[in-house]
Amino acid sequence: MGVKSFWFKSYSTLKARFVPISGTYPLGFRVGGQHIGIKEDPKSLDLALLVSDKPCSASALFTKNVFQAAPVIISERILSKSSSKIRAIVINSGCANAVTGQNGLLDAEAMAYSVDKLLFSENSTLVMSTGVIGQRLVIDKITKGIPNLHLNIGSTHKHWLACANAICTTDTFPKLRSSTFNLGGKEFRIAGIAKGAGMIHPNMATLLGFAATDASISPEAVKAIISYAVDKSFNSITVDGDTSTNDTVALLANGEGGGPVIHTNSPDFSMLKQIITGFFQELAQLVIRDGEGATKFVAITVQASFISIVLMSQDAKSADDAKKVASSIAKSPLVKTALFGQDANWGRILAAIGYAGVDVNPQTTSVSFLSTTGGCDLPLLENGEPVQVDESYASEILKEEDIEIKVSLGTNGGGSARMWTCDFSHEVFLEDKYHANIKYISINAEYRS
Amino acid sequence: MGVKSFWFKSYSTLKARFVPISGTYPLGFRVGGQHIGIKEDPKSLDLALLVSDKPCSASALFTKNVFQAAPVIISERILSKSSSKIRAIVINSGCANAVTGQNGLLDAEAMAYSVDKLLFSENSTLVMSTGVIGQRLVIDKITKGIPNLHLNIGSTHKHWLACANAICTTDTFPKLRSSTFNLGGKEFRIAGIAKGAGMIHPNMATLLGFAATDASISPEAVKAIISYAVDKSFNSITVDGDTSTNDTVALLANGEGGGPVIHTNSPDFSMLKQIITGFFQELAQLVIRDGEGATKFVAITVQASFISIVLMSQDAKSADDAKKVASSIAKSPLVKTALFGQDANWGRILAAIGYAGVDVNPQTTSVSFLSTTGGCDLPLLENGEPVQVDESYASEILKEEDIEIKVSLGTNGGGSARMWTCDFSHEVFLEDKYHANIKYISINAEYRS
Repeated sequence: MGVKSFWFKSYSTLKARFVPISGTYPLGFRVGGQHIGIKEDPKSLDLALLVSDKPCSASALFTKNVFQAAPVIISERILSKSSSKIRAIVINSGCANAVTGQNGLLDAEAMAYSVDKLLFSENSTLVMSTGVIGQRLVIDKITKGIPNLHLNIGSTHKHWLACANAICTTDTFPKLRSSTFNLGGKEFRIAGIAKGAGMIHPNMATLLGFAATDASISPEAVKAIISYAVDKSFNSITVDGDTSTNDTVALLANGEGGGPVIHTNSPDFSMLKQIITGFFQELAQLVIRDGEGATKFVAITVQASFISIVLMSQDAKSADDAKKVASSIAKSPLVKTALFGQDANWGRILAAIGYAGVDVNPQTTSVSFLSTTGGCDLPLLENGEPVQVDESYASEILKEEDIEIKVSLGTNGGGSARMWTCDFSHEVFLEDKYHANIKYISINAEYRS
Repeated sequence: MGVKSFWFKSYSTLKARFVPISGTYPLGFRVGGQHIGIKEDPKSLDLALLVSDKPCSASALFTKNVFQAAPVIISERILSKSSSKIRAIVINSGCANAVTGQNGLLDAEAMAYSVDKLLFSENSTLVMSTGVIGQRLVIDKITKGIPNLHLNIGSTHKHWLACANAICTTDTFPKLRSSTFNLGGKEFRIAGIAKGAGMIHPNMATLLGFAATDASISPEAVKAIISYAVDKSFNSITVDGDTSTNDTVALLANGEGGGPVIHTNSPDFSMLKQIITGFFQELAQLVIRDGEGATKFVAITVQASFISIVLMSQDAKSADDAKKVASSIAKSPLVKTALFGQDANWGRILAAIGYAGVDVNPQTTSVSFLSTTGGCDLPLLENGEPVQVDESYASEILKEEDIEIKVSLGTNGGGSARMWTCDFSHEVFLEDKYHANIKYISINAEYRS
C-alpha cells in the first residue's frame, strides 16, 4: 500500500503541469461536458459535445481493428454522406458501445440523431464512445442528457476543459491544447482534445482525439491533412501496442476565421498541413505523457543515414523501414522496463532493431541517447561497435523524465521516422480505484487554478 | 520492500516443483556444469558441457535477429560442415559474446576448439553463450575451465542438473526434462535442457535449449524433426515478444540406443517427430513457467473452425492465420495484465484478435475460457455476441495458475494453432539482486533433495 500512495502523489503534482490554465479557441465552436450517470461517481463527467455554428469540412480516421465499435461504423457512414456539412461531435465515456451487435448500432444512431434534432440538420453529427466493451449504452440517459448539455455549451476555456474531462476514462489528466497560426496574413485558431490509451483499466484502452479550427479548408484538403497528420502523430505513438475497437481521430474546419477556402492545390496547403501536423503531435504526446504508470517520455528517431532529413520525403521505402525500426524499439517491453530502471541498456535497443523485420546492416548501425537538457549526445554503439559508455553521464541523462534515443541505420536511403513512447513501470498494475483517485486529484487541482 | 519479500517466498516454494528429482538419461552422453568465474558469485555455475561418446547427427535453429551473436555465427558454420559428427555442446552463461565484432568470433571459435582438442576431433563442438551483450568473454578462464569441467562430466541426474544450472541467467529454476520412448519395439531415451527469456535482467533475455537422444537418426531426419518441433514449441511460446541475439535450440542423436537409422522416409519417422515435438513442448513450457514475474501459465488455442483438429495439416494458410491470432493475444500487454488481475476481460482478447492482421469475421468469432481443473468451459463471446458471464465461475477459473483460452474464428479453413504465454505482474520490475536470491533459494532447495 505504501507503494501505491507513493505513485499517487507523484502523479497529482507531476501531471497537472500538462493541463493548460487558459487558451484561445476557434471561432464558432461551442463545447461542454457534463455528468449524466454513465459513470457512477457524480463528480465524473461522462458526456461531451462540440457544436459548430456553421457546417464544417470534416474527416476522421478510425481504428483498423477488425472489431469496429458501433460509433465507429456509424460515424464512418455519416462522414461518407456529408463530409462538408458536419456540425457536431457527441462523445460519451464509461461505455464503449463495442461488440453490442445491431442494438449497439441503433444506440449510436440515436445519439447522433439527438444532436441533429437540436441543430435542425441531418447526418451532421459524429459520435464516439469510450469505456467498457460488451455493454449496451444507457441510451435513455444519453438522449435525455444531450438537450441539457446543449443548453450549457460555450466557448470559454472552462467549457473546453469540461469537454476534455468528459471523454476521460483511465486518463489521469484531461488532454486539451489550443493554438493560433498565421496563414496568408490572417490569424486562425485551432483547439483539440484527446484521451489516452492506457494499460490497466479493463476494456478502456481507447484513443480518441479531435481538433477544430476556424480556418476555411475544403473537405478534400481536410482529408489529406488528417491522413498525413495522424500518420506523424497518433500513429507514431505507442503506449502498449494494442489497438482498440473504438479509436477515432477527427478534424473539423468551419471557416469562421474567414479567408479563401484552402484546397489541396492552394499555395498555403503545405504550410497548413505542417501546422496541423505539429498540433496533432502535441495532442498525441499528451497521451504518452499519461501512459498508465509512465514515468518517462521517450522520443525515438530512426534515420536511414546521416543526411536523411534533407532527403526525407524522397524515399518512402527507407522512411517506412525507419518507422518499423522505431516502432519495434517503442513497443519492446524489455526496452521499456530498462528505461524505467534508468539503465543504459543498448543491447535491448539493438535486439529490438534486429527483429524489426527490416533489412538492417549490423556493421553500419549506430545508437545514441541524446540529452534533452542541452548536454552532449551519448553514443552507445557506433557502426556496430560498442562504445565505452560514461556510466555516470548515462545515468544523468536517464534520470530525466524526457529521454531521446537516436538510431542511424547507415543505409543509403533518405528516410527517417520519429516516434514517441513511455516506459513500463510498476504503476501499470495498480487497480482502477486508485486511478480514479489519481484522476480526480489531478482534475480538481486544475479546476482550482 | 514488503512486496519484494512476498514475491520471493511464493517463488521459492512454487517453482521448485518444476525441477525433477531424478531422471533416465540417454546413453553415451556425459554432461556437467561448474563455476569458472564469469559470474561473480562462486556458488553460481557458469560453464556447461555436453559430450557424446560417439559422433551425433545434429541440427540447430538460430535466432532470426539481424544482430547474431558470435556463438550463433560459429555454431551455424560448424553445423554446415559436420552435421553428422557433432560430439559436444559447450555453453557459458554470464556473458552473451554478442556485438563483440571480430574478436568475439575468435573467442567463440576458441571455446569450440578447446573442446575439440580434448575429443581429438575437429568441427565437432557447438557453442552457445548467454548473458550481458557487448562485453568480451573472459576467454582464458573458459579455455582453462573446459579441461577441468571435462574431467568432471558424467551421466547421473546430478550431472544433468548441474549442466542445467550452469546455463541459467535470470532463470529462477533450472529447466531439465528427461523421458523414454518406444520405437520399433525398442526403448530410447531423450533428455533436454533450456533456459528462459525473461523480462528484467539487463541484456539477458536469451532462449537456449538443446535435447540429446540415443535414438539413431539421420542428419536429414534430425533437421526435419527440429524444424517441425521448434515451430510447435519454442516458436509457440512468448514471454515478452522480444527476440535475442543468441537464441539457439539444438538436437543431437548419437544412436547409442541401437536400432536401424531413422530417415525421413522411415515408417517410424512421423511417430518419432511427434514424440520429440511433445518433448520440446515440455521444455518450452518450462520457460513460460519461469517467465520473469509470471504468476499464470496461459495456453491459447485458436482454431479456424470447430472441425479444425481433423483437418489440421491440410490447410497451411488457415493454420498460419490461427498462429498469428494466437500470437497477437499472447503478446498483448493488456491481455497479460488482465490475466494477472484475474479479470475475465474478453474485450481485450477480442481487441487482440482484431489487430492480428488476419481476415477475421466478427460475426463468427467465439472466445471461451476453458477450465484447467476439469470444470465446464466458460463461453465469453459466441459468434460475435457477448455471453452473460457467470462472474463467480469466471473468478474461480482465473484464480488457477493454469489458464486456457480458446478462440474459434468460425471460418472455413481447417487450421489451428496452440501457443503458451504468461501474465505480466508486478514482479517484472524487481531488480536483479532479488532475482539472484530467488534463483539460489530455488536451486539450493533442489540440491538438498
